[in-house]
Amino acid sequence: MKNNLQLTDDGRLRHLLTLDGLPARILTQILDTAASFVAVGERDVKSVPLLRGKAVFNVFFENSTRTRTTFEIAAKRLSADVVNLNVGSSSQSKGETLLDTVANLSAMHADMFVVRHAAAGAAHLIARHVAPHIHVVNAGDGRSSHPTQGLLDMFTIRHFKGGFHNLRVAIVGDVLHSRVARSQIHGLTTLGCPEVRVVAPKTLLPRDVDNLGVHVYHRMDQGLKDVDVVMMLRLQNERMQGARLPSAGEFYKHWGLTVDKLRFAKPDAIVMHPGPMNRGVEIDSEVADGPQAVILSQVTFGIAVRMAVMSILAGN
Amino acid sequence: MKNNLQLTDDGRLRHLLTLDGLPARILTQILDTAASFVAVGERDVKSVPLLRGKAVFNVFFENSTRTRTTFEIAAKRLSADVVNLNVGSSSQSKGETLLDTVANLSAMHADMFVVRHAAAGAAHLIARHVAPHIHVVNAGDGRSSHPTQGLLDMFTIRHFKGGFHNLRVAIVGDVLHSRVARSQIHGLTTLGCPEVRVVAPKTLLPRDVDNLGVHVYHRMDQGLKDVDVVMMLRLQNERMQGARLPSAGEFYKHWGLTVDKLRFAKPDAIVMHPGPMNRGVEIDSEVADGPQAVILSQVTFGIAVRMAVMSILAGN
Amino acid sequence: MKNNLQLTDDGRLRHLLTLDGLPARILTQILDTAASFVAVGERDVKSVPLLRGKAVFNVFFENSTRTRTTFEIAAKRLSADVVNLNVGSSSQSKGETLLDTVANLSAMHADMFVVRHAAAGAAHLIARHVAPHIHVVNAGDGRSSHPTQGLLDMFTIRHFKGGFHNLRVAIVGDVLHSRVARSQIHGLTTLGCPEVRVVAPKTLLPRDVDNLGVHVYHRMDQGLKDVDVVMMLRLQNERMQGARLPSAGEFYKHWGLTVDKLRFAKPDAIVMHPGPMNRGVEIDSEVADGPQAVILSQVTFGIAVRMAVMSILAGN
Repeated sequence: MKNNLQLTDDGRLRHLLTLDGLPARILTQILDTAASFVAVGERDVKSVPLLRGKAVFNVFFENSTRTRTTFEIAAKRLSADVVNLNVGSSSQSKGETLLDTVANLSAMHADMFVVRHAAAGAAHLIARHVAPHIHVVNAGDGRSSHPTQGLLDMFTIRHFKGGFHNLRVAIVGDVLHSRVARSQIHGLTTLGCPEVRVVAPKTLLPRDVDNLGVHVYHRMDQGLKDVDVVMMLRLQNERMQGARLPSAGEFYKHWGLTVDKLRFAKPDAIVMHPGPMNRGVEIDSEVADGPQAVILSQVTFGIAVRMAVMSILAGN
Repeated sequence: MKNNLQLTDDGRLRHLLTLDGLPARILTQILDTAASFVAVGERDVKSVPLLRGKAVFNVFFENSTRTRTTFEIAAKRLSADVVNLNVGSSSQSKGETLLDTVANLSAMHADMFVVRHAAAGAAHLIARHVAPHIHVVNAGDGRSSHPTQGLLDMFTIRHFKGGFHNLRVAIVGDVLHSRVARSQIHGLTTLGCPEVRVVAPKTLLPRDVDNLGVHVYHRMDQGLKDVDVVMMLRLQNERMQGARLPSAGEFYKHWGLTVDKLRFAKPDAIVMHPGPMNRGVEIDSEVADGPQAVILSQVTFGIAVRMAVMSILAGN
Repeated sequence: MKNNLQLTDDGRLRHLLTLDGLPARILTQILDTAASFVAVGERDVKSVPLLRGKAVFNVFFENSTRTRTTFEIAAKRLSADVVNLNVGSSSQSKGETLLDTVANLSAMHADMFVVRHAAAGAAHLIARHVAPHIHVVNAGDGRSSHPTQGLLDMFTIRHFKGGFHNLRVAIVGDVLHSRVARSQIHGLTTLGCPEVRVVAPKTLLPRDVDNLGVHVYHRMDQGLKDVDVVMMLRLQNERMQGARLPSAGEFYKHWGLTVDKLRFAKPDAIVMHPGPMNRGVEIDSEVADGPQAVILSQVTFGIAVRMAVMSILAGN
């Protein structure tokens, strides 16, 4: 049901809500399209006319300047008209329902909604109710999904490692509160990565971790052993409720990525982080700024991936 | 004086501040122009170059994401350069006067100001002081006027009913705090509607209601009897001071539009609402989502009406 | 070091961080270029394609709608893609460092950063770390610099007085907390103004005022005597800590610019103010709105000056 919602009857992408259920064929189409857009960002004139005259609404029920900016840039490079809406401070406070807000925006002849919401399933709910010509992109909903982040991670890995079929990948840190860990796991698995690990304290793992098809480690020396890719997660201080952790210092000591711990990985392992980084908490500056880090490449590729998603949706 | 302010010496529209005093000729010009823009919203490329190179400033002294968005979209579809200013949180807090703020923005070579302000008369004050080439559009000032909302209501009625000359129209609810009720009444009267009613509890009617040229009803069964159009008003909870109402539940019981109450109107009556709706307060969901509701059409037409106003002003 | 940072090896402008250290040649290039843009603002179509396809990021770590708007308009007139970021309420609150924020934005293929920050030296710090192709414009950092404001002041003086070589200029008011006083002093001195005065109470002068190469006055009758230009400063109420002033009324009595005090200046002296004005505090309305005031011309020229800076940087 979830899966069908984002594909048309003949199997093309209609909405991007989650990587869960997306076939490898679609993921590869997005990554291949993104590759063609990487070059655009390096040109003197950075825009292409693929979405000229189309109206893209960044509908953010939850504030996220960074994510909103990447989508705004991507849409402008495609020559779309972009309208930013911080709905949190607006109609919602006047007691309007989510669906009324969306119905209103649809009636303004929107072509695409980029939706950020604190509640899991919000983008799905919206996708289920928009007019047939409108495309929905999930820009993060609660702890659930953040598919474009997952896609840019896949793009980054493919760019630096050439593919997925021989890789050992470790996802490290606060899996429980991360919007991106699930997207990453689904993406990696679908694209053929034979070994995905999560490395985290028990208190930061979801209860259903055993169903995710990953290997679980609680120690860095074991979890990073001989991996090709280390994907750090941000410690979501602001999402944590109650005392699941002894302290930031304690976390750093056991699971913070230092040069010493990184030595357990392969010598040519790459280090990724979705940002913003808590330096000295989940990652040490020496690693973050070191030769194995590809963190800023992730940001650059993120623009190309979002352009790819938008242009594929608009073309379907 | 007020009337002259928005017309040029030879009777063309210079500013749009209020529907009060605008001749039927101008209203009809706006509605006819809007009709030509409705088609633009349905095209694949939604923009026309009528305001290319013009600078439209959305100057919002009071936050209203919804209204700002409709004007932003309208201006972008006309190819204008749009600058959004939330002035409430800015210069005003530095002690600058309203007129100094406007003089400064004028000096930046603005071509049009779209003004939202909590105080009645703010748009008039600004129009009185801007340079001759600058046009001012009132996007809502206090309880006073919201002329583009009134215009889109007229457009919607004309669209669904073909004209005004045989219509019986009921305006229902919080007339006292509504920015749009006065615009609606003036528009309907000017365009030849023979019978305009207001239906409201006494505590939500303005003192001068007898001067508005409308029929006043306090009961829905009588007020809705055989009307062609039901225009619901939003219950302005956030504007009300003191206890003018027993409760939202009490209001709903007597004046909330339900399927049962709607039966008093003609069978083909249309139901309008300016949004955002308080479902279960002034309107029941069964009506809001029912076959007689044209609420989302109002939103769509609102873009075309604002494009019409802007393009007429820019051409004058 | 500071000086070298903003010039390329062959002496062209790479960043605009401060007027301090900029040679007269560069200042004159900016003013001459701005003169050619003044005409653009008066045309019917106000844009030129000089920055088409370039991405300009307004990165405001401190809110300033007025300054942000002038840069946004300038960039849009140059046909750039403009992205506004209020970073204060964003990543910074998630604990990200200034340089991480900037590195991330750089990775989004930005071409130019317009930076506003509460801390002196922030724009320098950023300029020191951006990729080689990115240009940084300081839009105000703490009390330190606000070079485009200084430049538009120079432009205004040159426009109305024809040049600098025979001028006597008085800078009046809160020099201590002003971002612009230093920029003004450096600009005037570099461009050949033979006599720059500051007129202020001792408590509103910086300790190092004797090193600035200006004449210091504490009384208006003496300080304004026979000057050609009176540059008023805004009384920075919101920046002042502790009781450096007896009261706003007391300040007005001694240093507020009234018609009476202005009579000490030459009869054709011009009066400038960076805005927003505190009428009745540092300047009387009769002067602010009088025939010698060129305050709104400063705003208009400010757009042209910012266009000049951006287009020169993008061309270098």
